[in-house]
Amino acid sequence: LLLINGEPATTIDATDRGLQYGDGLFETCAIWNGRPQQWQQHFHRLTLGCKRLGIPLPDGTLLYQEAMQLCHAVSRGVLKIVVTRGGGGRGYRPPAQPAPNRLLQSLPWPDYPASYRQRGIRARLCATPVGQSPALAGLKSLNRLEQVLARAEWSDPEIAEGLMLDPAGHPVEGTMSNLFVVIDGCLRTPDLSRGGVAGIMRQLIIEMAATLAIECRVDTLTLEDLWSADGLFFCNSLIGLWPVRELAGQAMDPEAIPRRLIESLTNQLEYL
Amino acid sequence: LLLINGEPATTIDATDRGLQYGDGLFETCAIWNGRPQQWQQHFHRLTLGCKRLGIPLPDGTLLYQEAMQLCHAVSRGVLKIVVTRGGGGRGYRPPAQPAPNRLLQSLPWPDYPASYRQRGIRARLCATPVGQSPALAGLKSLNRLEQVLARAEWSDPEIAEGLMLDPAGHPVEGTMSNLFVVIDGCLRTPDLSRGGVAGIMRQLIIEMAATLAIECRVDTLTLEDLWSADGLFFCNSLIGLWPVRELAGQAMDPEAIPRRLIESLTNQLEYL
Repeated sequence: LLLINGEPATTIDATDRGLQYGDGLFETCAIWNGRPQQWQQHFHRLTLGCKRLGIPLPDGTLLYQEAMQLCHAVSRGVLKIVVTRGGGGRGYRPPAQPAPNRLLQSLPWPDYPASYRQRGIRARLCATPVGQSPALAGLKSLNRLEQVLARAEWSDPEIAEGLMLDPAGHPVEGTMSNLFVVIDGCLRTPDLSRGGVAGIMRQLIIEMAATLAIECRVDTLTLEDLWSADGLFFCNSLIGLWPVRELAGQAMDPEAIPRRLIESLTNQLEYL
Repeated sequence: LLLINGEPATTIDATDRGLQYGDGLFETCAIWNGRPQQWQQHFHRLTLGCKRLGIPLPDGTLLYQEAMQLCHAVSRGVLKIVVTRGGGGRGYRPPAQPAPNRLLQSLPWPDYPASYRQRGIRARLCATPVGQSPALAGLKSLNRLEQVLARAEWSDPEIAEGLMLDPAGHPVEGTMSNLFVVIDGCLRTPDLSRGGVAGIMRQLIIEMAATLAIECRVDTLTLEDLWSADGLFFCNSLIGLWPVRELAGQAMDPEAIPRRLIESLTNQLEYL
């Protein structure tokens, strides 16, 4: 089911700037027991994104009502929200008064094996780099072609995620997730000021670590940091947290992730 | 007028990957006397782009027929071609057998003042950098949000173009054009292996320079190279070549561009 500006629809104006230029943003929320999860956090990120791009923010109450229209009958699923700058403007130049379009879509829950969370995943190194784009860094914008190319690199169903490096070879994120490294019980996650998507689950884990008195640093990582780490995990709003048991053929310890972090996350996120 | 896969249309499937991820490419051709100009070059770039992205290339004869359907009654205008990967796939992962969508759109000729080409333009330095993205460098992909943000920086109609720098401060391109620098009668244009769009007019000028025995080098430029240059110009398929008479408030000599280059270009491109 899909709503465009509140109305059931299947198509969008072909001149929409979202299609023509990737001029927009999106959010992907878990649906659980008829409600979008982490709604406040997703709406907050959308708010910041719209502000950075100069796209008028959809009304929060209206957006929530429309989200509930799609979610209320869903016990477990995915809500995808796309906000584009709408039509108009001249070439790249945006119109002075944009009329944004909002698309809400209800999608099935992805059927990832339970073992991914419980026993960890196998991951690969992607050849496609994440670009360095200070203007878009952190944003969940519609410019996601690098992630598409990275995800197209493999079809082996045994490989659950791919790690993307920046052009200088620093680990940045997974194709659809953020990365954390565990060293001596402390966490490190890549700085995203030059590229990458600042995930809701990443933010939640950073905050949770602070609550649990687990040291967590945001900084530049190297591949050597990863090889010498006690453990790694990927996270996003749908998968929660996936420990890594193998990266690029090298065994990693999926048990290295602080137990109380996993417990705290599982307690807080019922849908996992 | 707009054709999608050969049929008149105004809308496109909202789940198209072009909208969801910017998963596609485009071309912008001049229309002159009922025909798309530099068709071979545009189709060649589309061919290379589709190959890099793994998108099946539309049939060239069919695409030309559809282009002619839009162009045949147009004496002067713009043809925009968008090719997306179509729908399907799971998240970022593309479908194994993509069914691309092709959009052809006829647009009015942009009404730039004739003085831009004759007496030169005023240009600014954009604060929005062009990202370094080796995976997408050179491609005219649908991921154009940086250009949108750069073009949104100014509304002064006296400023015709903005120069974008990479994150390290090296000049890369205009928001909608490529950049050339003239030094001692020789040309230099930025290397686009890490970012930027490899324009058809840029390619034409590089080839034309060779024919005219004008030295032309593709390399990394600095802002200092620009300030100390004899002259600068921007180019694309619609504007041809715009000399710069002022960059960021500093006067430049619009007459510094080799006269025989301008004459050769004007002779070859009737629509200018």
